[in-house]
Amino acid sequence: MIERISILGTGLLGTSVGLALRAAGYHGSVTGWNRSPEGAQAALSMGAIDTIAADPLQAAHASQVVLLAMPIYATLDWMKKLSSVLDSEHLVTDVGSTKAQITAAAGRFFNTPARAAFLPGHPMAGKERGGAALGDANLFRGAVWLFTDDPTWRRSPHSLELIKNWREWVAAMGSKTLDLDPARHDELVAWVSHLPQFVATALSALLEEEVGDAPELKDVGGRALREMTRLGASPYSMWRDIALTNTEALQAVLLALEQRLAHLRENLRAPVLRDEFKQANKFRRE
Amino acid sequence: MIERISILGTGLLGTSVGLALRAAGYHGSVTGWNRSPEGAQAALSMGAIDTIAADPLQAAHASQVVLLAMPIYATLDWMKKLSSVLDSEHLVTDVGSTKAQITAAAGRFFNTPARAAFLPGHPMAGKERGGAALGDANLFRGAVWLFTDDPTWRRSPHSLELIKNWREWVAAMGSKTLDLDPARHDELVAWVSHLPQFVATALSALLEEEVGDAPELKDVGGRALREMTRLGASPYSMWRDIALTNTEALQAVLLALEQRLAHLRENLRAPVLRDEFKQANKFRRE
Repeated sequence: MIERISILGTGLLGTSVGLALRAAGYHGSVTGWNRSPEGAQAALSMGAIDTIAADPLQAAHASQVVLLAMPIYATLDWMKKLSSVLDSEHLVTDVGSTKAQITAAAGRFFNTPARAAFLPGHPMAGKERGGAALGDANLFRGAVWLFTDDPTWRRSPHSLELIKNWREWVAAMGSKTLDLDPARHDELVAWVSHLPQFVATALSALLEEEVGDAPELKDVGGRALREMTRLGASPYSMWRDIALTNTEALQAVLLALEQRLAHLRENLRAPVLRDEFKQANKFRRE
Repeated sequence: MIERISILGTGLLGTSVGLALRAAGYHGSVTGWNRSPEGAQAALSMGAIDTIAADPLQAAHASQVVLLAMPIYATLDWMKKLSSVLDSEHLVTDVGSTKAQITAAAGRFFNTPARAAFLPGHPMAGKERGGAALGDANLFRGAVWLFTDDPTWRRSPHSLELIKNWREWVAAMGSKTLDLDPARHDELVAWVSHLPQFVATALSALLEEEVGDAPELKDVGGRALREMTRLGASPYSMWRDIALTNTEALQAVLLALEQRLAHLRENLRAPVLRDEFKQANKFRRE
């Protein structure tokens, strides 16, 4: 049913969706647009998109499904712009990492029977570095693709068909889907995604000061250290919007980890250290 | 030159050394002993050792090189026991994760021209779970094997030959070697090995409380979360001795990370967050 898709933002995620759709057997058209022409060109040459759109609003209007694959504030900007040119024939969806603000905007600008539908989405997949060149048809394989749809939204029957079909393509790209309330989503990803990122950033920044000028000492840490700091390479440009749109939840989880580390530090020679290791072992039980 | 080795402690590291020696072309004998007979039996059936020693002191005396591959306090106990039965014909070495106490004991009980030599060693390799069954001939490939030898020790010429040959076997197992002062060693591994472990333990213990009862939510974190919590599976039994013998250094690095996390938490909406990400990016520059 979906035969015309446009991808606005052909960075790592946008490009990977284009590649994953093709790998999953999608035979329709994919038009792409990117803020920097080089990114669009890279996605085109990798086969993630068929054509580069000169005018993204026109391209969106000509497609059935518009995927916004850009940072959160840019997504919010484009939602506003798109809402005035699209109608009940269109579905817009996104890949933004926090969902409260985007889902609220989706309720304001979309999701009435006369307007375009907006399905807030968040594939839990990525890499520590971005860009079309790292695009990967298998990026979503085995990942969880979260949605924060609002069951009270009333949409055209056509929109509902597009949503159903898009969810099928998400499954075809190899992802499990999970539906969450947007506030619960933002709290959950603060724990399982944002906290690991900020820990890796803090650990990497600290170690850069300690051993950054001595490559032979960095090597000493081996695989464990490489894994624990891999996310240290993640760019601020991507995480700025997350920190700004999920500040409270992030503050809460960071404080909780600080307290947990202090608890370990104060009990290095006490029996309670055993309980902490046992509790951690449980999380990794097989 | 080395033709008779005994491995006391056939857990993950002892078994892996036996397998790695064979893979590197060592043709001499390897006698093994383990506190639990099952561990020795497993190492034997995997080909990591040729025979199980009934009496570890006798086996040590009959070999040229004795490898102690057990937790730190057990290593210290065996050092004392071995020092009274071995002489300048023997080299003892170990794989303990902290080196200040072991190196001090090596100076007290070994390393005179009439006594056995003791070379304090620490291969920076391991897995988050222990045991002979996980033994791996490639465990030391690409790893750094640290030594905290004391250049003021005076040993027999024969001991020096054994040490030279053991270092050659370490290289043959695929490790780079690095010599450090024992205090510097313990400080360095607090940063690059113990801190990552305790962060993973704290993060895993915390997440077990938050989402441990909801497997579908644990999956949401994907590869990044799996990597950041892999070490959460590490057993207390191994880390207890490390916490007890490197307490001060561990306290210092944990406090430094707590402060760094608090700094991030207080600046989630401030420009300084950019500097922290940039500093972290530097650690992971390629």
